[in-house]
Amino acid sequence: MFARKLTAASEVARGVRPASLMLRGGRLLDLFTREIIEADLLIKSGTVAAIGSDYPAGEQVIDLDGGYIIPGLIDAHIHLESTLLLPAQFAAVVLPHGTTAVIADPHEIANVLGIAGVDFMLEAAEKLPLDLFFMAPSCVPSTEMETAGGEITPEQVERLLDHPRVLGLAEMMNFPGVIHGDSAVAAKIAAALRRGKPVDGHLPAMGGRDLQAYLAAGISTDHEAVTAEEALEKVRCGMRVIIREGSAARNLSALLPAVKAAGSRWFMFGSDDREAGELLTVGHIDEILRRAVAQGCDPFDAVEMAALNPALHYGLVRRGAVAPGYRADLAVVDDLEDFRVRLVIKDGEVAVREGALAVEIPAHPPGEGLLRTIRLARELRADDFTLKAGPGAVPVIGLVPDQIITEKLLLEPGRGENGLIRADPQRDIIKVAVVERHRRSGRVALGLLRGLGLRRGAIASSVAHDSHNIIVAGVSEAAMAAAVNALSRTGGGFAVVDQPPAPAVLLPLPVAGLISPEPAAAVAAALEKVTAAAHALGAVPAQPFLTLSFLALPVIPHLKITDRGLFDVDSFNFIEL
Amino acid sequence: MFARKLTAASEVARGVRPASLMLRGGRLLDLFTREIIEADLLIKSGTVAAIGSDYPAGEQVIDLDGGYIIPGLIDAHIHLESTLLLPAQFAAVVLPHGTTAVIADPHEIANVLGIAGVDFMLEAAEKLPLDLFFMAPSCVPSTEMETAGGEITPEQVERLLDHPRVLGLAEMMNFPGVIHGDSAVAAKIAAALRRGKPVDGHLPAMGGRDLQAYLAAGISTDHEAVTAEEALEKVRCGMRVIIREGSAARNLSALLPAVKAAGSRWFMFGSDDREAGELLTVGHIDEILRRAVAQGCDPFDAVEMAALNPALHYGLVRRGAVAPGYRADLAVVDDLEDFRVRLVIKDGEVAVREGALAVEIPAHPPGEGLLRTIRLARELRADDFTLKAGPGAVPVIGLVPDQIITEKLLLEPGRGENGLIRADPQRDIIKVAVVERHRRSGRVALGLLRGLGLRRGAIASSVAHDSHNIIVAGVSEAAMAAAVNALSRTGGGFAVVDQPPAPAVLLPLPVAGLISPEPAAAVAAALEKVTAAAHALGAVPAQPFLTLSFLALPVIPHLKITDRGLFDVDSFNFIEL
Repeated sequence: MFARKLTAASEVARGVRPASLMLRGGRLLDLFTREIIEADLLIKSGTVAAIGSDYPAGEQVIDLDGGYIIPGLIDAHIHLESTLLLPAQFAAVVLPHGTTAVIADPHEIANVLGIAGVDFMLEAAEKLPLDLFFMAPSCVPSTEMETAGGEITPEQVERLLDHPRVLGLAEMMNFPGVIHGDSAVAAKIAAALRRGKPVDGHLPAMGGRDLQAYLAAGISTDHEAVTAEEALEKVRCGMRVIIREGSAARNLSALLPAVKAAGSRWFMFGSDDREAGELLTVGHIDEILRRAVAQGCDPFDAVEMAALNPALHYGLVRRGAVAPGYRADLAVVDDLEDFRVRLVIKDGEVAVREGALAVEIPAHPPGEGLLRTIRLARELRADDFTLKAGPGAVPVIGLVPDQIITEKLLLEPGRGENGLIRADPQRDIIKVAVVERHRRSGRVALGLLRGLGLRRGAIASSVAHDSHNIIVAGVSEAAMAAAVNALSRTGGGFAVVDQPPAPAVLLPLPVAGLISPEPAAAVAAALEKVTAAAHALGAVPAQPFLTLSFLALPVIPHLKITDRGLFDVDSFNFIEL
Repeated sequence: MFARKLTAASEVARGVRPASLMLRGGRLLDLFTREIIEADLLIKSGTVAAIGSDYPAGEQVIDLDGGYIIPGLIDAHIHLESTLLLPAQFAAVVLPHGTTAVIADPHEIANVLGIAGVDFMLEAAEKLPLDLFFMAPSCVPSTEMETAGGEITPEQVERLLDHPRVLGLAEMMNFPGVIHGDSAVAAKIAAALRRGKPVDGHLPAMGGRDLQAYLAAGISTDHEAVTAEEALEKVRCGMRVIIREGSAARNLSALLPAVKAAGSRWFMFGSDDREAGELLTVGHIDEILRRAVAQGCDPFDAVEMAALNPALHYGLVRRGAVAPGYRADLAVVDDLEDFRVRLVIKDGEVAVREGALAVEIPAHPPGEGLLRTIRLARELRADDFTLKAGPGAVPVIGLVPDQIITEKLLLEPGRGENGLIRADPQRDIIKVAVVERHRRSGRVALGLLRGLGLRRGAIASSVAHDSHNIIVAGVSEAAMAAAVNALSRTGGGFAVVDQPPAPAVLLPLPVAGLISPEPAAAVAAALEKVTAAAHALGAVPAQPFLTLSFLALPVIPHLKITDRGLFDVDSFNFIEL
């Protein structure tokens, strides 16, 4: 079957059989010779069969009228869960932006559901007109300081690595585990390398011997570089640098000088975490192309980073370029500045025309097991958030605007009857709690927070990196309880409660407590609504739920809170209030 | 085990454990940033652990005194059999030239012995301090116009492709089979592509629609380009071009302008066919580096083509560069002009020091089945070469100096008693015959030859592409018979007979009739001796046995001879004398 398809493409190239699709009169970016070629492009069997003139018309002919043909774009590193979309809804929103493949790390859903979550993503990827490839999650659970819902064992990593959609081992965030030779970490890395598959890295702000130790252990990419010097040092050591342009972290401008210095060959683009609304309105990899070229990047360099380089690094053969024998995953753009996508071809079929989907995207509804993942011991009450402490100043988590690191503050809290601590919104000291939600343990960890700015009510989220317990912050204990209970009923999501019994404003994320089944536009609108509701309560950060979601991540300095308590990242110890 | 090794390398990079080997004071070519880095290099677990200064001394320390550290060189395309050496002897001769890996197509031995020949090469590759990788032979037997000793079936190709040393499908020489959709051809290509493994091409002097049809069928490399224009057209279509520098065909000078135009990224170096003597005295890939740089190629470009590019194209992860985490396969050269190799490190061990091997190279003696492969029905006699033809001019194979194409001449032959045709050395028309040697069929095909220049006696060879029957050319029928019989007794090789019963001058190639068990120096000396003997009989070509070996190749225009008869390549038919 495959063999016959190859032959059919060959016959089209010889001119003895018509193409299934002919793109006439386009200008094609040849990434190999760096030329723009004016020619017709012939497609057969999902493959670019030939590029030339004087061929017989194809069964279908599309006139490109001088449009530029570039390869379908590839996101080298993304967590699909961060878009809050199911794979089918994600495909529907990124295909019109020219994306034809992404390389995703499903570690969020794995933290909730373990291998079942990854298996769901793998199944959901089948039959989509977008190629979802995955990296096997390497660090689930992420740490021992929190309670996750799932675990990916070394044996499961091995099993995943044998799946054709799994291209390697996902970002190895456990840096201490790597350099101190944790045996499970080393086993997972070895499993990938033995199969000739790459291991992604995650190495923020590190260089020198630490960087080399990390590389010596077998890791080959990084997407955490934020300065050109850092990126250049990584490239110099043989690392591939994924330039991240996500909703929260944007590193393109800082890293383009490194591309200029070392050449585009060692760089790729990735969005890491990008919101549904941003995908809809601003774009995906096409937006990175646009921004790169606007900042002086050569368009050939930009397209190479956006397609060919990830294909070559991750072993996606016959992809990432426009040439005979390459998969017919193509985007046609108006020009090489705006990169406005007017046509997308996926596997040789028209997938998008003038922004509108031209293919059906089959849904893959999540099974029951993925839907009821908020498992609390019981409904919460206001007094679950009662907080006691001795006299004097206590540790308070201090938010740092636009950053995921926090400060460890020592402040005198507000106190009520019996010396019980209460929120003091005047001084911007409110309560924060993490409610274990995977195992019905009833565990609630409590702390204090400055910088969120809430003046009343509470906001809560079941998206809380990396274990995705429920994190809730509030002025009123009753509102905190109501927000958590609302999430429990809806299967997770984002909740804002002003004054109970007034109902919560909700963005339901019933799939693993992380993902909505709705289309991107609906998700974006709902996110706007809960965000506005949070702002109405006084929340200061532009994206309060994003801010909240990083408060439980115990590997980022300085003071964090998990379901097991307040965690001092510097001393690597839990501390008492 | 592997996991522990990774950890140990990591510890060396952190400076908490000594390197097993430290190369001190070298200058390292960083192919990623194109910088020369002056630093110490630390090795552990066969891996480059770190590059830097102020590290504790390694268990072994070698002072490089400013020598340049480059990655171990990789030959992207070679037929080991053409060196006439066994793998171990080949390793002994190329390691001192800095070669640490080769990608070989074992199709010569496969034509004689089928899968058993390939299996022998795979086994012989184990435990060598040189990485022999293979491509699964795609075209064995080569054509239906000749009798081969072996066949590689599509099922065997599948089996080979699953072997970790087999990187893809070897040069697909059956161009008509590709573009006309021969099902066995397409099945073999599909088998490689399904595994994500590349398919090598072989596409002399072809472009346009034929080239695109060939690529559309799934092929990704070529090593037959002889002009820069041809190479550029291939690169433009997404093909990787292997620049061939063999003993017979040298394409570097012609192709360097294409490297300049398209960038070095799409090019690699390969020797295709290179003689033992040339490997010994002139070199291997190091010689190509030397010549490339002498002709103005940037040394970084040259080293990239000689190491990193083949590693990346053929999926040899963590190879082809000098960086932490990369395999410690390294060469140290005096400078970036002569590239004189002073030290070779293979898998982290000193393999060569000042030209002398420092490692043992274990022999892998061929079993009996590989040794007695000249299977004749009986001893030949002079009258086996009796040639009759009707009156008038007859077709004569005309050699073209320094080329493997031949002319089809129509000449009046010399005739003796009874109208029998006899050699006419005055007019340089001699006899040529192919003796089937695989199946004891007794088949002897006869023809006439001009251009070899023999004035008496005969020369014979069991190396005769692609089926490796015995080809013999001579003035005297008795000498022809004696030469063939001498090869039969010795198990194959090259033979020169002046006047029987004087003994033959021989280069015995008892392994499959293609390969000597002797070291390179002995093989080179013996080749010189038989070549001198052939020249003493009047042979004109510089390498008469090489010339002879291409006369039986029925896919090269215009007139050839196989064991089945005289073959007119233009009409694609056997013809009668």
